[in-house]
Amino acid sequence: MLPKTAEYGLRAIVCLGRETAGRQSADEIAKLTQVPRRYLHKVLQDLGKAGLVASQSGPGGGYSLARAAASITILDVVNAVGRIERVRVCPLGLRSHSDLCPLHREVDKAYAMVEAAFGRVTIAQVLSASQFPLPLCDASPLIEAVGE
Amino acid sequence: MLPKTAEYGLRAIVCLGRETAGRQSADEIAKLTQVPRRYLHKVLQDLGKAGLVASQSGPGGGYSLARAAASITILDVVNAVGRIERVRVCPLGLRSHSDLCPLHREVDKAYAMVEAAFGRVTIAQVLSASQFPLPLCDASPLIEAVGE
Repeated sequence: MLPKTAEYGLRAIVCLGRETAGRQSADEIAKLTQVPRRYLHKVLQDLGKAGLVASQSGPGGGYSLARAAASITILDVVNAVGRIERVRVCPLGLRSHSDLCPLHREVDKAYAMVEAAFGRVTIAQVLSASQFPLPLCDASPLIEAVGE
Repeated sequence: MLPKTAEYGLRAIVCLGRETAGRQSADEIAKLTQVPRRYLHKVLQDLGKAGLVASQSGPGGGYSLARAAASITILDVVNAVGRIERVRVCPLGLRSHSDLCPLHREVDKAYAMVEAAFGRVTIAQVLSASQFPLPLCDASPLIEAVGE
């Protein structure tokens, strides 16, 4: 239901928010997130404009989070790259529908619920090491520990 | 957030579910719902396949609801034309993510909420005459009554 760019934006932010991340090149981000390069550039640009990602050019440059992962919610990321389009006015442009009709009210209510849910979860929570599997990582530390 | 076809499917079903509807031609539905004809044909076909809309060809033919509006939920319509894609498996295809990671769990939780919300509301409820403005109608009976 989310646009592909929102999914890609979330992967990029999670990638940059990992404890071990530091500054990362577009190549590294693309590899880890599996986001096609033609999308990644635009997504990182949008995340930059929204003040979520900082970039530094030149040797040793790359991308990093511009804010702490604990202060970035899933909603911040979704809104930066695609925005959840709430239904504010009648999609049919009917003049008498200054209030939404029951159909579009129900649709908008669902969107509002998603907004609220995404607004409650931070990227830091998503990355919390107490939860497995870890986003973007194809290995569970729990499994590794058991295997030792 | 819903695909355009879902919005169009909902309009078509609401159009056919109105008390005064009877059997309606594609032209009538297109006019009232403002759904472009190139979409409407496909939408009506999908609604037919899902058993929500019946069609009769020939003179006097047209489209009608195949079931009572009280037995059709918003979710039935959305699923007939586009389906809410729940996140069942890791979108990155990571082997160790047999359970979803916290990021994709949160995304899927939001989708599940929308599914549940849409599953609770029937087309009959949306068309309930006690609620204004009425879907697809550019006149509120309340306003008309005051104007008399």
